[in-house]
Amino acid sequence: MITLLTDFSTKDGYVGAVKGVIKRINPQAEIVDVTHDIDSYDVLGAAFALNNFYKYFPKGTIHLAVVDPGVGSLREPILIRTKDFLFVGPDNGIFSFIYQREDITDIIIISNKKYFLAEPSGTFHARDIFAPVAAYLSLGIKIDEFGSPAKECVKFIISKPEAKGRSLKGEVIHIDRFGNLITNIPADLLENKRNAEIIVGKRKIKGISRSYFEIKETCSERSESKRLGALIGSSNFLELAVNQGSAQKLLKAKVGNPIRINFE
Amino acid sequence: MITLLTDFSTKDGYVGAVKGVIKRINPQAEIVDVTHDIDSYDVLGAAFALNNFYKYFPKGTIHLAVVDPGVGSLREPILIRTKDFLFVGPDNGIFSFIYQREDITDIIIISNKKYFLAEPSGTFHARDIFAPVAAYLSLGIKIDEFGSPAKECVKFIISKPEAKGRSLKGEVIHIDRFGNLITNIPADLLENKRNAEIIVGKRKIKGISRSYFEIKETCSERSESKRLGALIGSSNFLELAVNQGSAQKLLKAKVGNPIRINFE
Amino acid sequence: MITLLTDFSTKDGYVGAVKGVIKRINPQAEIVDVTHDIDSYDVLGAAFALNNFYKYFPKGTIHLAVVDPGVGSLREPILIRTKDFLFVGPDNGIFSFIYQREDITDIIIISNKKYFLAEPSGTFHARDIFAPVAAYLSLGIKIDEFGSPAKECVKFIISKPEAKGRSLKGEVIHIDRFGNLITNIPADLLENKRNAEIIVGKRKIKGISRSYFEIKETCSERSESKRLGALIGSSNFLELAVNQGSAQKLLKAKVGNPIRINFE
Repeated sequence: MITLLTDFSTKDGYVGAVKGVIKRINPQAEIVDVTHDIDSYDVLGAAFALNNFYKYFPKGTIHLAVVDPGVGSLREPILIRTKDFLFVGPDNGIFSFIYQREDITDIIIISNKKYFLAEPSGTFHARDIFAPVAAYLSLGIKIDEFGSPAKECVKFIISKPEAKGRSLKGEVIHIDRFGNLITNIPADLLENKRNAEIIVGKRKIKGISRSYFEIKETCSERSESKRLGALIGSSNFLELAVNQGSAQKLLKAKVGNPIRINFE
Repeated sequence: MITLLTDFSTKDGYVGAVKGVIKRINPQAEIVDVTHDIDSYDVLGAAFALNNFYKYFPKGTIHLAVVDPGVGSLREPILIRTKDFLFVGPDNGIFSFIYQREDITDIIIISNKKYFLAEPSGTFHARDIFAPVAAYLSLGIKIDEFGSPAKECVKFIISKPEAKGRSLKGEVIHIDRFGNLITNIPADLLENKRNAEIIVGKRKIKGISRSYFEIKETCSERSESKRLGALIGSSNFLELAVNQGSAQKLLKAKVGNPIRINFE
Repeated sequence: MITLLTDFSTKDGYVGAVKGVIKRINPQAEIVDVTHDIDSYDVLGAAFALNNFYKYFPKGTIHLAVVDPGVGSLREPILIRTKDFLFVGPDNGIFSFIYQREDITDIIIISNKKYFLAEPSGTFHARDIFAPVAAYLSLGIKIDEFGSPAKECVKFIISKPEAKGRSLKGEVIHIDRFGNLITNIPADLLENKRNAEIIVGKRKIKGISRSYFEIKETCSERSESKRLGALIGSSNFLELAVNQGSAQKLLKAKVGNPIRINFE
């Protein structure tokens, strides 16, 4: 099984080419579309999306992830093996969360042209390098056939929340399709802290809700913004959300915006 | 076979998590993407889309449909069985057309945690409840294993057209990607009535065309709006359309706008 | 294996209906989504996308391509066979590049109602005609069962670049999701001409880069537009691109805009 995550959209047929290449090498490969709608060149957004789904797949799944603004530069194509999964893509930080959360068994710099399409272009490595490598992996080719081992891969420095007395400082690291603001504050720092006060811009949110729905009852403000609240989202981070609305629009929020939490 | 319909878009990886959960429980399950682009929280739009495709699938298909603004509230997760299909999703009206059109064999309120992901979140039941239930269904688990029977499910009241003398009053119930306005007037009320006059806002349309293409010849107005016409659409309802354009844009139409039909 | 390319988007469930029809006729058929996001009615864009992927698929693949503004008119449904592939769709130019680049073995005007859905609508031939035909083809039904042979199909006249002394005149034929401008100038006219000067609007680009990344170093201008460059894109045509940006936005470019190349 090979999952696909790209920023290609589908309308130009580029994703079709990637799928065709895989199917021609291994007609038995099962291709699972995850997304082709990552914002163009948004490697961090891709890393975040990957983190949201990779671990739910069966053991042995190959995750092909290509958001690749540096295609044709010196950035290397890499292959990462963890206990349960294989990851294939550019070495540009797209695997940051994997590196941080999983025990990495192997990192391979992909270089063996035997497993590339003949005459790879300088512009479309997803079709010419990553797709055939993923397809040959799915045929059972050993990973050290593809190139030489490396010790590290490129990682984003994902900022950690800072504790200061009885408060925590964090930031928005992702904004999802519903306008929910996902922060870098993990659930375990908030255990038994359902009464914390969250400060974002000029607004205060009292308490952490259990669901989007519950936000209606716990919010501190009443007017148009009365449905703004905080909860532990499905990625297991603190999330700011508006019940049936968009926190992003309400707060005109961006990735990087600061969040403060005061404990009693 | 399990079809997927959601409003998640794909860019955050949420749909990937749903697919992974299904594949881990039943690697043989065949997942068919129908859409992840329902407008956020648009349960009625989801019900309409579901109605457009469910019946074309092979008998035994499991239709998983999740547009779920009430996730974490008291709305129940349900499972509906008809003669040919199984439906899994939130009990919020998303299955209104199914309830109206099909003989319902069973309705089950899903409650057996054995078939949930461990520790379901309050925010992502598609991953934690609906996906595993659909996957276990595809493995042949009996439906009464999942919870207790119920007699009814939540339904939208889908307005019916009103007949008044030699005219009919209806309304726009859906606007599709091409800007076609789909009304609540079913084809059978218009049989042998090809010469009816349709009134929408200040415009009159003379006659019902057989295709988008035919609209050009039958329309009553000539200037910029000359390609506005009416026809029986693929959902078997009266539809207003502009040949190679958007009726929605031309008429600045919204769901709920009234339509009148005068028969001769 | 059946690939799908349409302009339906997915949100109305129309694509779901197409998939259901195929699966009901041939449950073993493997459906590969290429795209449903072609701009509405953009037959040329569909032809271009198809050209980007069809040849990468395994021999025997059936490519179903439906962008069909003329549905219900006299345009015919057709079936094209080449050495390696089958193509099914409306005869409106969508197969122009196939016709130009492949040896066509057969063209069939589809007319045998035995292979249609009962009572095809005048508005949705993808569901009622093209999907069942593709499904029956995948079951091994012989192509001459579907209708009568034809000698030609509708083709777009895709403009060819004009040579004039030591310069070439071409035009933009497609703009992709990244805002890259794909021209009608094929790679083979530019072999060993890496130093050519490309003129687009009031801008000059010196030289042809090997990758988007390399553009940074070869561009002639420095200010905001300094990352505009030219390269041979993955479709094997000359392409204008902005490294990590959009050439379309920078140049306010449209399909049809002229490009000139001066050789030394």
